[in-house]
Amino acid sequence: MSELRKDPVLDRWVIIASERGRRPSDFAAAGSEPKPATCPFCGGNEHMTPPEIYAARGNTPANGPGWEVRVVANKFPALNIEGTVERSGIGLLDRMTGVGAHEVIIETPTHEEDMAEASLEHTATVIKTFQQRTLDLRRDDRFRHIIIFRNHRAEAGASLSHPHSQLIALPIVPQIVKATLQPARLHYMRKERCIFCDLIEQELALPDRVVRVTDQFVVLSPFAAGFPFELTIYPLRHSHDFVQMDDKEMLALAEVIKDVLQRYKTVLNDPPYNMMLQTAPTTLPRPGHPEYWGTIAYDFHWSIQIIPRLTKQAGFEWGTGFFINPVSPELAAESLQVTSS
Amino acid sequence: MSELRKDPVLDRWVIIASERGRRPSDFAAAGSEPKPATCPFCGGNEHMTPPEIYAARGNTPANGPGWEVRVVANKFPALNIEGTVERSGIGLLDRMTGVGAHEVIIETPTHEEDMAEASLEHTATVIKTFQQRTLDLRRDDRFRHIIIFRNHRAEAGASLSHPHSQLIALPIVPQIVKATLQPARLHYMRKERCIFCDLIEQELALPDRVVRVTDQFVVLSPFAAGFPFELTIYPLRHSHDFVQMDDKEMLALAEVIKDVLQRYKTVLNDPPYNMMLQTAPTTLPRPGHPEYWGTIAYDFHWSIQIIPRLTKQAGFEWGTGFFINPVSPELAAESLQVTSS
Repeated sequence: MSELRKDPVLDRWVIIASERGRRPSDFAAAGSEPKPATCPFCGGNEHMTPPEIYAARGNTPANGPGWEVRVVANKFPALNIEGTVERSGIGLLDRMTGVGAHEVIIETPTHEEDMAEASLEHTATVIKTFQQRTLDLRRDDRFRHIIIFRNHRAEAGASLSHPHSQLIALPIVPQIVKATLQPARLHYMRKERCIFCDLIEQELALPDRVVRVTDQFVVLSPFAAGFPFELTIYPLRHSHDFVQMDDKEMLALAEVIKDVLQRYKTVLNDPPYNMMLQTAPTTLPRPGHPEYWGTIAYDFHWSIQIIPRLTKQAGFEWGTGFFINPVSPELAAESLQVTSS
Repeated sequence: MSELRKDPVLDRWVIIASERGRRPSDFAAAGSEPKPATCPFCGGNEHMTPPEIYAARGNTPANGPGWEVRVVANKFPALNIEGTVERSGIGLLDRMTGVGAHEVIIETPTHEEDMAEASLEHTATVIKTFQQRTLDLRRDDRFRHIIIFRNHRAEAGASLSHPHSQLIALPIVPQIVKATLQPARLHYMRKERCIFCDLIEQELALPDRVVRVTDQFVVLSPFAAGFPFELTIYPLRHSHDFVQMDDKEMLALAEVIKDVLQRYKTVLNDPPYNMMLQTAPTTLPRPGHPEYWGTIAYDFHWSIQIIPRLTKQAGFEWGTGFFINPVSPELAAESLQVTSS
């Protein structure tokens, strides 16, 4: 059974996922991920995964071929779907049952069809799947936040090379999301404007960190990027939640994502990367609760963050929580602007 | 010129160290660190480093052979030693000049003599060097915090394999240190006791997470460890600052560090690791300043944190700020207790 634990001094929660069952000897030969002879995510191997939770498929039976996108439970989940959220303490130490959802979104039956090459219509179907799963999981009031992320290549933490994303639903609002909500709320209270909208407007006024603007989206090289060539995709229209996107917007987003991945391929030789979808927390606590933020976080602005994994985090970063970025965001933007389409 | 930048929403500072001068092409073949034909840190190659700032040496001239430990400026510093701390803003964005110190502590003239093998007397000299450099840099009132860290092997971010540590003096108190000071202060105000001392006492009451206790130190597997087999070394005697250690304590610490590194070698096959020395901030801001904490942080408790680099951080960790640890701290402690000396 997984468990959430809070550091008594740092006030930071950690997931202890010990039922993943790894022993010291599993780490002895770190770095080499064994490649399975048969890929469980490929079309035709549906029997090798847990049963499907959702699929974008035609009139074909579940757990067989004929699908475009398929969602299954993670075989080694960080959190357990069964159980209730229970908090307990021992002296200075706090723990919580490790309840949550951990799903895998298999993006295509074709092993080689990565998001950088897939058709826009297909990627739009993947994004729609993200929406469907998010909407479904939000009905479960044990969960307070949903994060969807994509790890590309083993160096970025992917354990299987078949194109896939993951979704984790959490019983708490994580630190980074909370840290973002607070200034956004303060800014809104003071100005009745979204801090992200203001930031986007300020950035659009000069070209230094703008990689690309379309009718609906902007791709920014963030002013205080912690990682070289990190990018953020924001919708230009204010929206706190990515499920508000309609079909046309999802197609436009698919094009922007593909274009960003193509730029990385050209400029950085197809780097490993992490892609994270940041959207407003799922269920907001009720008034009177210490986590209550007033109303639903309409002052949040959803985004997609993409971090190529080009540098290693070391003692300084773990010890201080801040990052050394050896490439200025302006140089990153300039390099990535070159292949402008 | 380096620059500190603050994320307008996350309130997190980042160092943009662009004079490290890396271009996109430098990242194209990520992962392979070129090995220099001649190691600039080896004895006899003193001319290959910047001039020495400090050395533990007998009656021999500076910048020549005959030293035990040698401190030089980092050739590619994250921060610049010259200049004043100046803050400026553009609309929503905040920046600060990248002023600070970035030094390399070359721990030995012998390439193969890593800290896991070095004599206790030698490692005590290295620790004494950390104290000397810290005391010297504290006289510079531009700096608010000093962190000393050690990256072992390329997978942990070391760019040279010769045994060395690094020191960075910062013009701000970093987020993680601040996050630690606040609960420590609140606990002290309420109970007039150190939160770390209380935590150590609680942990010592049961053997689950205690890897080792000596007369002066305890090695704990932290209750909410973010990384598998992470350990923290605390002095048993309350002390906010590692410079308070006398010669006898430094020798005892050298033995504890060597023992921990030997346990890692035995149980985890000499893993890459990051080691961080966490001590109270250097200069505390004056009353009235927003960063003022009342008095000097006597309620802090210094420690050494060691993180073997066995797992990869991926989209979930970067997107939420919390970690999935696949090994329970109790199992980690049990595995590492086995080789008890």
